[in-house]
Amino acid sequence: MIRLDVALGTRSYPIQIGSGLLDLDATWSALPLSRKLLVVTDDNVAQHYADMVLAALRDHDVALHSVEPGEGSKQLSQVARVIDALIAHGSRRDAMLIALGGGVVGDLTGFAAACYLRGIAFVQVPTTLLAQVDSSVGGKTGVNHPQGKNLIGAFHQPAAVVIDTRTLDTLSDRELSAGLAEVIKTALLADAHFFAWLEEHMSALRARDADALAHAIRRCCEIKADVVSRDERERGERMLLNLGHTFGHAIESVTGYAQWLHGEAVGTGLVMAADLSRRRGHLSDDDVARVRDLVHAAGLPTDARALSADEVCRAMGHDKKFQHDRRRFILLHEPGRAFVADDVQQPMLMNCLAEFCA
Amino acid sequence: MIRLDVALGTRSYPIQIGSGLLDLDATWSALPLSRKLLVVTDDNVAQHYADMVLAALRDHDVALHSVEPGEGSKQLSQVARVIDALIAHGSRRDAMLIALGGGVVGDLTGFAAACYLRGIAFVQVPTTLLAQVDSSVGGKTGVNHPQGKNLIGAFHQPAAVVIDTRTLDTLSDRELSAGLAEVIKTALLADAHFFAWLEEHMSALRARDADALAHAIRRCCEIKADVVSRDERERGERMLLNLGHTFGHAIESVTGYAQWLHGEAVGTGLVMAADLSRRRGHLSDDDVARVRDLVHAAGLPTDARALSADEVCRAMGHDKKFQHDRRRFILLHEPGRAFVADDVQQPMLMNCLAEFCA
Repeated sequence: MIRLDVALGTRSYPIQIGSGLLDLDATWSALPLSRKLLVVTDDNVAQHYADMVLAALRDHDVALHSVEPGEGSKQLSQVARVIDALIAHGSRRDAMLIALGGGVVGDLTGFAAACYLRGIAFVQVPTTLLAQVDSSVGGKTGVNHPQGKNLIGAFHQPAAVVIDTRTLDTLSDRELSAGLAEVIKTALLADAHFFAWLEEHMSALRARDADALAHAIRRCCEIKADVVSRDERERGERMLLNLGHTFGHAIESVTGYAQWLHGEAVGTGLVMAADLSRRRGHLSDDDVARVRDLVHAAGLPTDARALSADEVCRAMGHDKKFQHDRRRFILLHEPGRAFVADDVQQPMLMNCLAEFCA
Repeated sequence: MIRLDVALGTRSYPIQIGSGLLDLDATWSALPLSRKLLVVTDDNVAQHYADMVLAALRDHDVALHSVEPGEGSKQLSQVARVIDALIAHGSRRDAMLIALGGGVVGDLTGFAAACYLRGIAFVQVPTTLLAQVDSSVGGKTGVNHPQGKNLIGAFHQPAAVVIDTRTLDTLSDRELSAGLAEVIKTALLADAHFFAWLEEHMSALRARDADALAHAIRRCCEIKADVVSRDERERGERMLLNLGHTFGHAIESVTGYAQWLHGEAVGTGLVMAADLSRRRGHLSDDDVARVRDLVHAAGLPTDARALSADEVCRAMGHDKKFQHDRRRFILLHEPGRAFVADDVQQPMLMNCLAEFCA
């Protein structure tokens, strides 16, 4: 078992990473758990892991609340249902939520924890690769609004993160690839060695080699913990974690969040960000090819030919509502070194989009 | 114009107190306002002050969102409506909310500000005495749940508080008295001199003497700012601000939040807390009489004869749901010096309630 720490003063917390952690009593007894717990999960994850977790927590006063799988559960009315469940369970300030699932469950549960009685503690138990390497660490919580994703939320750090790599056994290949997009993103923005390691070990990762997965998850959590401890509220450096996401969010928006998984859109977004970095005179053609090849090797799309460049551009916040704000892109000086660019000009952006879209 | 500061490091903020501040350009130009503003108010307050505020903010890109007056607007669905209005107004992270109204508007607006894009700035412009002396300062925001008040919320400090004492001109006598309950509470828990001053000036306050009101508001804001700066998250000292509220909340709960104003219930709650303090051997009979007389002089009820002691006791968190938790009372060593008591025994509590209830 690996243990990392997110250093945030009095709100610091541990990340445990290991295989088979969920049904180990030692995993849970090492945490500062409350007597009263509410486990929030979704119906798919519940089938596989709810009994295991409830059994491990048998000495606590524990209840279970399950939501429908999928992004549809990430809405304000579902926050109200979690709070209903907390009240029905007689939860006071010392009660604790446990988010057992992927990014949707983690974001929803974390936001309910942030709001209930003006903030109670919660533990992240991510069961998808994407949540394990990215969304469960760092305290971003929230739900969607019909007009946009994550418009309603809070920064609320978990009390602990428990990553059981064995939960990846029940993940589909497509979801695994989606998680690998965030792994590639993390390497690209912060660690050229890790990027090179990914180029060598991508087939092992897709074959779910336990050691390779554990290494990748650990490295991503280390990098994210470092960034978050220096810039919890995303005033500066933390923005770099959005590498590939300006493009990715636009792709998701144009396709109504229905066809592309978030990780798939981010994968293509990483290739686009690399290409835009090349056009600005930073990355070499070779580096762009390395990014594209690695995204492809992860089983992810590397272009968005079905979408029009104009539509994607419009979705990039370049609409009437926000016309006074400039688009912000995260670009690359080189693999492992990212920066924020506020001054990307429209023609260069359109040339880039034309390369990848219809 | 008086200016105080709530000292909270990088989240410190000013409180301006004065007569006629709302339509003074200098009031607003002294604040770090954004270009894009959304003023949230209720239909009653809007009639009196919306045009004045919108005119003063004419150089900004400002929109207005009005809710129905009353506690019914303090619910999660109304948070969603404020967020709809923010989005319709094209608000990004640098947008700002302005809460123009009483406690309901302040709590609702502050919570919407806490949640939108994981937190944007807001300014409190309280227009009731209760909000001016208590709820607008300190960063407690939130909405009600069918099962209880303020169950959903956040600590989110305002960027500034603007208190125009002239807005009290349009307040009913009953609402003025309700606000005076929190004034008496503040004096009782922290400042014996202020308590004695209130005994001398209660009739001036009820006659809306501008100087007397300004002094009382200033002293309450000073005391609250001090307490909040030492204990923002209510881990200790801030609990003292709940003097009279354990009883008060129970009265409100038994009467379905319909008959008693919050301040009226707190007024009676202060007399009950004084009586319980006497039974524990702290306050003298004379001190209890001083509290009762001052609450009475403020135009507030000093007992709850229409309610049964058993019902009030049950409403005091002594129900099955929370049976493992102990009731917490704020009691008085003497006027001006409060403390937290976790060990009040049932017979003593029932004797106290029997004195005031049926």
